[in-house]
Formats: sequence, structure tokens, C-alpha cells
Amino acid sequence: MIDTPYLEVDVDRLDRNLAALAGAARSVGVDVRPHAKTHKCAEIARLQIEHGAVGLTVATIGEAEAFADAADVTGCTDIFIAYPLWPTAGQAARLRALAERVTLRLGIDSLAGARHLASAVGPARLQVLVEVDSGQHRTGVTPELAGSVGAAGVAEGLDVIGVFTFPGHSYGLGDTRRDAATQELAALATAADGLRANGIEPRVRSGGSTPTVGLLDAEQANVLTEIRPGVYPFNDAQQVEIGSCGFDEVSLTAVATVVRRDNHRVVLDAGSKILGADRAAWATGYGRLLDHHDARIVMLSEHHAVVEFPAGSSDERIPGIGSFVRVVPNHVCNAVNLVDELVAIDGSDTRWPVIARGRNN
Amino acid sequence: MIDTPYLEVDVDRLDRNLAALAGAARSVGVDVRPHAKTHKCAEIARLQIEHGAVGLTVATIGEAEAFADAADVTGCTDIFIAYPLWPTAGQAARLRALAERVTLRLGIDSLAGARHLASAVGPARLQVLVEVDSGQHRTGVTPELAGSVGAAGVAEGLDVIGVFTFPGHSYGLGDTRRDAATQELAALATAADGLRANGIEPRVRSGGSTPTVGLLDAEQANVLTEIRPGVYPFNDAQQVEIGSCGFDEVSLTAVATVVRRDNHRVVLDAGSKILGADRAAWATGYGRLLDHHDARIVMLSEHHAVVEFPAGSSDERIPGIGSFVRVVPNHVCNAVNLVDELVAIDGSDTRWPVIARGRNN
Repeated sequence: MIDTPYLEVDVDRLDRNLAALAGAARSVGVDVRPHAKTHKCAEIARLQIEHGAVGLTVATIGEAEAFADAADVTGCTDIFIAYPLWPTAGQAARLRALAERVTLRLGIDSLAGARHLASAVGPARLQVLVEVDSGQHRTGVTPELAGSVGAAGVAEGLDVIGVFTFPGHSYGLGDTRRDAATQELAALATAADGLRANGIEPRVRSGGSTPTVGLLDAEQANVLTEIRPGVYPFNDAQQVEIGSCGFDEVSLTAVATVVRRDNHRVVLDAGSKILGADRAAWATGYGRLLDHHDARIVMLSEHHAVVEFPAGSSDERIPGIGSFVRVVPNHVCNAVNLVDELVAIDGSDTRWPVIARGRNN
Repeated sequence: MIDTPYLEVDVDRLDRNLAALAGAARSVGVDVRPHAKTHKCAEIARLQIEHGAVGLTVATIGEAEAFADAADVTGCTDIFIAYPLWPTAGQAARLRALAERVTLRLGIDSLAGARHLASAVGPARLQVLVEVDSGQHRTGVTPELAGSVGAAGVAEGLDVIGVFTFPGHSYGLGDTRRDAATQELAALATAADGLRANGIEPRVRSGGSTPTVGLLDAEQANVLTEIRPGVYPFNDAQQVEIGSCGFDEVSLTAVATVVRRDNHRVVLDAGSKILGADRAAWATGYGRLLDHHDARIVMLSEHHAVVEFPAGSSDERIPGIGSFVRVVPNHVCNAVNLVDELVAIDGSDTRWPVIARGRNN
């Protein structure tokens, strides 16, 4: 028996989440290339590939190496590092080595970045996509500049095959998700036209975050050829609170012990070193309790979560000292990256190693 | 050469920070028992012991095991798990095994907890301290109840040797630190009197967070016998912003590459998976730049930090694409827990393994 706190996966729910997304994408003819930064597990990547995913997305060279090493488990040799890398000489050598082992895609988001990538990596079998800013204002060129950045890549000898965006501004309440999905489509359509105007066929038009892929329909599929959601296998408290999923679609929780109780307030042994410290401005707390929807985590330390139940909650509804509760992290990607393995609840004592944990570079 | 992002320690600054705290404590006759959750490194624990620390503090059984295993490096066999554990049978066995190897201290903060600890662990060489709430309202009994909890522990056969508190409400602007330090002293004094009234000599009166130990003076030393600061070897952006230290006392940074620049806005390849996602309500951003005090990290993703410089900043003051910058995490404890090793800048290429990373249980 493992001691608390630990991260546990409900494998039935995980499989339902994988099947639902795969079915939705298939029904409108869009490819799925899941972002593996969320789970960092070979076993979950394998399930995604079995559900029809065409490849994997990662954020770093280190994650790409971890999944290339696990290709015998995952069955996947097609990896997209969806990041505008600025490789050092050492990173360029790693990218060349990767390109020998897998079909490797990279992102560019500036003229300087396209030139640097081409000169640093040199001749290698790379596919390149232009990153477009659809409204998050993080990385990516404005849609109107995608054509000229793509043309610069081609002039440097890069194989530019399309455009991609991450609509990270889809995380919010109210109409935020729908507005972001609309902007995502418009940005990709404009960027694709820009590539065409420069003689480049944008055969890959890649988008999709977990909040926006829930809105996938035929109109989106006219623009998108591929989606890259990350969080959907597990979901988390953020997805619940912005309306992307229900609590019954959350498959990963931190199992914690109640170490103190005062009336309607309990303290758990799970803190920011297993849940992550994420708390968006609109979040109602530092995570949620899977089995107590009216409770809120009002304070989070490294090894403490202070939970308040509504005043007047009946005594037997509040977990007693020494009992176990299941905590839904706010942002599951950061929670998974804190542990070496996930406990998979599938009828036997299975552990899934988090093979890409800490692979930041 | 290591690729960015990675965590680097300026060993000269680290040593100055260790010496300054050790000197301040020595001058007023207070023991230092540093909290090792911050660095989780045997080499830094060894330096702390060399600077006169009487033992180590940790937060979990797993951390205690990691430092017990490293006793040959650290020279320390005196470990305090400053947490009100509610041990399972498995954890109780681990505690018994630890108590055979090191001088082991534990915390209790309720009558139920004292009874459960005594019955679960059984006869073992444990020292027990009563945790007191000095105003953070996380764990700990009210100061007035410390005597009865201590007496319950003694009645169960536990060796109750004193009281401890963590003034975590010291994190804030203005007079917050000073007010918390005042409350910390008052709470420990009341709790110590409560133990005495129950016939227990409170020979250990342990307090101290990095924000409050900077205010250590003879008046505090009348109450405190021991302090347990964690962050002071490294410091971090939180300590800078609440006034506990200056930028020139920050010894740990994340080295990052600029991957994009637009005018006075740059994007770095360091995100919440190396900096942590902590952002207190009073913080000015998601961390600071060590060499650019007027810059702010306005957005943080897993592998991106979006940094804004003041409008009108001269062009040459803004780091160009491909250049390296040093980022000060908001909360260094969570940053260190994300990496397997620290790069120690000491004139040679030294790596310090983070031996207790992820030891949450």
C-alpha cells in the first residue's frame, strides 16, 4: 500500500475520455495529435495511439527524446515539438539525432527564428510549422505575417508544411472558450491563406486546446486538419470550473489524508508539491474535492491544503481525521510533473512511470 | 554545457547567506535547525551543519529518509519532521525504522493526533513537540491548548520536549513580517507556559520562518531556543518583494533563453515547470529577473514566461533573442522540487543532486 499523498488514475474514466475525443474528431474528419506534456506517460500515449491519434505533441526536446525512447511501447514515431525553439549547438545536435529516429516536426515564429533554426540544425529531415498568435499573445506571429515567415523558412531550405496555434486564452469563464475558438479558426484561416499566397501549401492546420476541442464541429473542421489537446485524458479543476467537463469526467486525483479537523474546516497532507500551485484569477480555490463539490481549498502550502466546507454542513458529510479524500488539481499538467509514477486503478496494482517528468530542456 | 532552462546556484552568495544567518543566531544564542525542504540537497545540508546548525527540519517521512540516507555526507543525524503526521501502519513502521537511525522529532497538534501517534508507532525513541498556531491558521493548536495536548502526549508515553510554530502569515507587505514575529513570540510563550503548568519542561521553543528570522534580536531569544528557516540559503522573489532580502542576496536562479522578442516584451523558455506556479496576491508577477529589476513576468505557462520591460526602455537594455537571462523564482522551494540537480557555480562544473525531490509521503 502506498502512503498519501499520491496521484491516482481511474483507468475506466481515462478510457472514456480518450474514446469521446477520438470519436468527436473522427466524426468531423480531424486528426488528433495529443499533447503528451500533460501525462508524460508511455502507457497513456499508447492508449491515445490505439484510439487513432496520428502522432504526439510535446513542448521540449527532452520530452521528444523521452517519447522517442518509448516508441516500442507507444507505437508512435511521429513527434511535434510545438515550440519556437532557439537551439544552441548542443540542442541542434540533439534535434538532428531525433530526426534520424522519428518523423520530427518543429515550430517557427519569427524570421530570425526560421533562419537560426535552419543554420543551427542544417540539413535534417524536419517538418516545420509556423506558429500563429490567435489571441493568447504569448508566442506566434500575427496571422498576417505567417506567409512571410513561412517563405523565409522555405528560402532557408526548411520543409514548411503548415501553421499551428494554441488558443490558450480559451481558459476563462462565460463565453471565453467560444470566443477563443472563433479567433483560433480565423487566425489559422488567415495564416493558411498567407502561406498559399507565398506558394506554400498549408496542408497541416493545427489547433486545439482541451477547452476549444469540446466545441469541435463541421465548421471548425473546414479550417482545422488536426487538434492537439493535452488535458482531456484526465481533465482537472480548471476544466470543470470553465465548463469543459463535469466532475464525472475527471480521471486523475491526488489521494490525501485528513491530518486535522476543526468543525467545517479540514487540513489535508496534499499541498503544492503534489497539486502544483496554479490558481487562475477566476478559480474558486487551489483545486477541488472530487467527492465534495461544495468544499473549497482556501489555502495551499507545500504539504497542506486547508479545505472549508459550507458553514452548517452536517457533521457526517465532513471527512474525519485520518480519512482519505480525492483532490482534483487545478492544473493537472503541473501535478503530474511532480511525481515519478501514477497509480493506475485498473483492478491490479499498476504503476505508470512519468517518463518525461522534469524534461524541461 | 547544459541546455536552458536549468537552476543554478551562486555558491559564494549561498555561503554568505548561510554565514549571515548563522552569525545572527549565534549572537543571540539561538540554535539553527534549517528546513531542508527548500534545498533537498545533501551538500547544502552539509554546509548548514558546518555553519553550526544543530539538526535539520523536514516536512515528510520521505524527506527524513532521504536525509537519514545522506548522513555520511551531511554529518547530521538529528531530524525534525515538523508536521502533524497521522501515520498509517506503513508510515508507523517507517518512523520506527527512522528512529533507530537518527534522533527523530515529530509534531502533534491535537489530542486525537497525540493518541494516534503513540498507538501507531508504539515504543520508539521519539521526541515530540506540540505545534502551535501563531496566526497562520493552518495547523497547530491555539496557544492556550498546548498544555493539554502536551499532557495527553505524556499520558500516552510520548517524550514531549517543547513547542513549535510556523509563522507563515509573515509573508506579506508592510508591517506583516514584524506583526507575525510578535505573534509568533507571544504564541510560543503562552504555549510554553501551558506545558509548564502541566508539569512539562518546554526545553525546545522552536519558531522562525525566513521573513521573521531577519528580525531576530535579544527579545526574541528570550522566548525562542531554535529557529527553522528554509528559504534563506537561496532567497527568492517573494523574499525580495516583502523586504526580507535584496536582489544581491538571491543565490538561486533559473537560467533561461529568450525565444521571442517584440519591442519591450520578451518570451523566455522557463515556465511553471521549472519556476513553479506560485503567485501570492501581493506579488508583482510570476518571478523576477535578477539583472533587470524593472522587468515583470506578466504571464506564465508551463514552458513560457512573458516578460515586459517598461515602455520606452532603451533597446540595448532589453535582452535579444537567443540571449540568456537569470530568473528569480517566486517561491524557491517549489522550483527546486522540479529538478533532479542544481548546477553549482563554484569554479568547476559541479552538480548537486536534489535527493529529496518528490518525496511527498
